[in-house]
Formats: sequence, structure tokens, C-alpha cells
Amino acid sequence: MDDKPSTPRKPRIHSLWQEFRELTLPSSSYSSPAVDRLHSPPSPLHFLRRFISQNKPCLITNSISHFPALSLWSSPSYLSSALSSSSVSVQLTPTGLADSPTLLPDGGGLCFASPHALRLPFPDALELIVSGRRDRGLVAYAQAQDDCFRKDGGGFDAIRIDVDDEIPWMSEAMGSFPDAVNIWIGNGESATWFHKDHYENLYAVICGEKRFTLIPPCEFHRMYVREYPAAEYVYSEDTGDFELRLEEPKRQVPWCSVDPYPSPEDLERMKREFPLYFNGPKPIEVTVKAGEMLYLPSMWFHHVQQNGDERGGLAVAVNYWYDMQFDIKYAYFNFLQSIQVEQESEELLSAD
Amino acid sequence: MDDKPSTPRKPRIHSLWQEFRELTLPSSSYSSPAVDRLHSPPSPLHFLRRFISQNKPCLITNSISHFPALSLWSSPSYLSSALSSSSVSVQLTPTGLADSPTLLPDGGGLCFASPHALRLPFPDALELIVSGRRDRGLVAYAQAQDDCFRKDGGGFDAIRIDVDDEIPWMSEAMGSFPDAVNIWIGNGESATWFHKDHYENLYAVICGEKRFTLIPPCEFHRMYVREYPAAEYVYSEDTGDFELRLEEPKRQVPWCSVDPYPSPEDLERMKREFPLYFNGPKPIEVTVKAGEMLYLPSMWFHHVQQNGDERGGLAVAVNYWYDMQFDIKYAYFNFLQSIQVEQESEELLSAD
Repeated sequence: MDDKPSTPRKPRIHSLWQEFRELTLPSSSYSSPAVDRLHSPPSPLHFLRRFISQNKPCLITNSISHFPALSLWSSPSYLSSALSSSSVSVQLTPTGLADSPTLLPDGGGLCFASPHALRLPFPDALELIVSGRRDRGLVAYAQAQDDCFRKDGGGFDAIRIDVDDEIPWMSEAMGSFPDAVNIWIGNGESATWFHKDHYENLYAVICGEKRFTLIPPCEFHRMYVREYPAAEYVYSEDTGDFELRLEEPKRQVPWCSVDPYPSPEDLERMKREFPLYFNGPKPIEVTVKAGEMLYLPSMWFHHVQQNGDERGGLAVAVNYWYDMQFDIKYAYFNFLQSIQVEQESEELLSAD
Repeated sequence: MDDKPSTPRKPRIHSLWQEFRELTLPSSSYSSPAVDRLHSPPSPLHFLRRFISQNKPCLITNSISHFPALSLWSSPSYLSSALSSSSVSVQLTPTGLADSPTLLPDGGGLCFASPHALRLPFPDALELIVSGRRDRGLVAYAQAQDDCFRKDGGGFDAIRIDVDDEIPWMSEAMGSFPDAVNIWIGNGESATWFHKDHYENLYAVICGEKRFTLIPPCEFHRMYVREYPAAEYVYSEDTGDFELRLEEPKRQVPWCSVDPYPSPEDLERMKREFPLYFNGPKPIEVTVKAGEMLYLPSMWFHHVQQNGDERGGLAVAVNYWYDMQFDIKYAYFNFLQSIQVEQESEELLSAD
């Protein structure tokens, strides 16, 4: 029968951010936040109790060491040979960035730009990926995110045997098999803009490395989610040029506005436009190397950069999406979204 | 990469309440809410996934059927005989209500009234409990809540063997043994006012029945938590009268203000004073019978009434408190507490 004294206070979004980080991230990590690290596959019960239930990320080593993919896939010739008769979907952009707020030409303002999707024989797709460069205005990334690694017609049947179909301890913890398994094949020119997924995510890096920048769901307001008109890159194989076309009929897409790594000349402007992000608690940065797996809890905002490996220049990953539980955490998140805090929080920040 | 369209809205505490109930309580229960019912001991993994992690209550049958207490304890003569040489702590009030907002005499306003604690030989304590009546101004309830059933000197050693020391599937789910095990011995004259505990609670009814009235943590504002000066009942064995004395030095106790079952003459006044409670979603009422166990998740507000059994007139229960996880749910709850919503919500209610 205890009810700790707790005088009602003004809404303090900063207290929420701080308390969550103190409770959930390893100790002494508020100024230099990191995630827990597990050095062997956890038991389902332990993982459910300490990570999934708490919506707490971690990095897991020695859990996918037995995947044949780890030794095979860094050779582009292995992949081209194994998938010589497959066709796959590949996403093209001029900048390496898709699904992000992007300037329309001629002062048209910002739009939400989807990539140009192209279906190609795998060897051609891979050549495009390997040779893709921002400075040449063409970057290719196979990242279909539609269960592409497993589904009929995804094109990856011949290499499915190189990784496990599921992560057994995760399936047991969740009480279900993965809802989707996706493969990501790119090079260091591609990045993925801040967003969140309604899935529990195990993200296994096979070649190269992925650099995740993480923001917890309760720091929603730091993402400055705004609505952008949907647009699509259209690529002309004849001219090699992209055109950015607004969708018709118009459709608004709510999306994170913050670029966590702006160019030096944009930084001051970004700090003024997104003070909760740039003056708030430090984002959590995690580098996931080949052979490691990140548990990325549902609803966490993540931005991803990558480096290709030394051998073939490729960054390749397979991720397992498990259905999340829509429970009290989800209801609280939706309530948080409905609260306007920018004004007050900015004042609090400037008073710090 | 999905981010469902969600236009920012005004803070809507009602949406949070409704969404939580839709997600967490069994379907079609919004107007007549009930809790899930398990008919056998669950597996640790299932219970962690479906109940503890989701902060979701349930009623469990056929899980404590093997407790010898179920057949033994409804006989006061068994208890008196087994504990004939023990002394135990018993809590006395004139009304059957302790730890609740209570009127001070002579217009002194409301205080938070603790019961008069008395240490008695068990047979004397039991006689006081069995004979206690509100209309005679003396109700006794053994409800020490300090691990009294297990701890040295609690007085219950001789009957510890009649129940299990822990609930094995819960201990495995939590990864820990109970932090406290308490025994509750009373009759139908005692009740427990709305409050919450920072524990995961398994509440096993041995004799009689307990009628729980539950409000989820996210409905915090419906409890009208206010500060009351701490006071204590002082009982005179000579006169048989109680005096209610304010603590010195003064101490404020934040406590739930709502009486969910006011007398008919008080009802209209209560509805005006606590509209979020009386006009909000229906509280969840669960009757736990002898042999059944309630999983009462951490931080849920609960009010408890009871009926003694037919044989000895006693209501007896044993509850197991497991340390809760202080995670994102707890951080969100604290944030919610800091928000003033009464004004707006009352307007929303009256607009319904």
C-alpha cells in the first residue's frame, strides 16, 4: 500500500526523456548513451523479460556465426552466380536517400520522395548497386521490405539456405514466427532516413557494417513529424536522369523531418529549426558489424548509414520482423503524440 | 518503413483510456469490462508475454487447488489451535476502513487515517476479527503487508506449510522470488480503499471472497489523488473508543480521493466532485473466490471489499508481491501524472 509522495508538476517532457533513459539504457550512459551487449544467444524468457517487454535495444554477438552467408555473400561473384537466373527489385535514387523529405525542383518545397523501383536480372542489379555513386547521380539499393527474402517471386530463393529462416529464441519469446524477412543489399552511398516500424526487429548484418542512430519512442517530439506531399523519383534509362513527380491524386505522408547529419553549412539552420533534436539528449549510436545482430525494439526511430566491406564493397543485411504487441506502451505513445510540447520544451531547453 | 497517417490532435485523455481498454481487456468489454480467465497454471513464457509485459490483469483458477489451506483455514478453531502460542499484528478501526481519506472530528476536514496497530495472541486477535462490527464501532483486520506471512516474528510460522512459498511459474517468469508474502484475515466488515502498489501481485483467496474494483494506471486522473495530512486512529481498550490524532510533525500523504461505492445520499455530491470517475468508463469489477487467484498488475488502482465464508465467517487471503520492472511504462505513467487534464476532460465528458 505505498503511494510515494509526488507533487503534481507541470508537464515535463524532459523528465520523461531522462527517466526513460535512466531506466532503460545501461548506467552512466546519459551523456554517452550506448546499448546493452549480449555475447551469446539469450534464453527466450530472459530476452522477453529484459528487452522486448522493456522496449530496450541490445546488440547480440555470437548468435548468427553459423550462417553460411557470413563467408559466402561478401563475394559479388558468389551472389551473381547463385542468383544468375533470378530477377529482383532494386530501388534507385540520385542521392542514396529514399523515403525522406526532399526538395522539389523550382522552389516547390519539400516532398516525401519514394525511390524508383526497377525489376532487373540479379547480376545487372548487383552491378548497378556496386557501381552506384552519389556524385554520378545514381545510387541503387535492394531494400524492398516486403518479405522479399522469403516470398515467392522475391528472387532470393537460391540463397535462402545461407541464413536461418527465423531466430529460434526470438520466435519462442514472441510466440510466433517472423512476419517478414527482408534482405538489404547496398553500398556505402545509401542511407535510410529516420523512421519507425510497427515491428520487433532483429537486424543481422552479413557484410560490411551498419551505423544506427536511435531515438526512443518517448522522444517522438524530437523528430518533428510533419506532413509532406508524396512524390516519386522517375528514372529515365535513356538519359540517366531522375525526375521527381508529385503523386496524383495528392497524398500527405507524415514523416520525420530531422537529418541527424546535416552538412556543416546547414548545421546552424538545422539547430534553429529542430532545437529539440539538436539540443536534446544525445542520440544513441550503434555500429553493427558483420556477424552481429541488433535488436531494434518496435516504435524506436532509427536512421541508418552503412559501409561496404573491403572485399566486394557491399553492405548486406537480413532482418526479421516479428509482429509487435499493441499494448499499454502503444497507447501511451499515441497519447504522447497528441500532446503539443514544442513551445514549452524549447523554453525549458533555453533555460537549461 | 511504415508510418501510419496520424494528424496531431489535441491531448485526448479519453482516447488513451479507450485505446488501452480496447487493446488490453477482452473484446466487447468496454461497456461491461471483465478480465481474462485462465483455467490452469500458465507457462512462464506465456504469462510474461500475455499478461505481465502487457500490464494486463487476469483471474486464474486451478492453480492453487493443492494448498492444504483451502480446506483447513475456514475453520477458526484450526487457526486458533495451530497458532495458539503465536502473537500477531492486527489493525483496528471503528469503520472497517483504514488508509483512506477520513473526516477529522469538529470540522477538521479530511485526513489520511492509519489504523491502530495492536499485537495480540493469535486466538484473541481472531476473536476480535470474527466479532468485529461497524455498527459496534470496532472492526479488526490482520493485514500487516510487511511480508508478515514469512518474516521472523510475523507469527504465522505454524501455518506457512499450508500454502506454497512462491508461485513457481510466476517466479520463473519474473526471474525472482517474491519480495513479500502477506496474509490477510478479516471479515465482511473490512474494505480496502483505492490505492496502487509498486509490485506485480498474485492475490490468492483461501476463504470467503474478495471483490476487486480495478482502474488501469493510465486512468490516473480519475482517482483524484490529493494530499491529506497523516493521522492515526488511537484505540482505548478501557473505553472502547477511537480517537483520530494528526501526526506530529505534520506529514502530507497523496492518496486517491474517490469512494467507488458511496451511500445513496452521498452519490450526487460525489458525482459532482469526481466526474471523471463517476462519468468515465466503467471500472473493472472482479470477484475472486476461494481457490482462485487474481493477477493484479503493478500500478493498477484497486479497491477491495470482501465476504467471509459461510463456515467461519472469515475472509482469508495470501498475496505474493514480486518486484516490478521500472521501465518505459513506469516513465510514461509518471509523465501522465504530471499532466493537468481535469478541466478539459470534464468538458469532453459533458459534451459526450
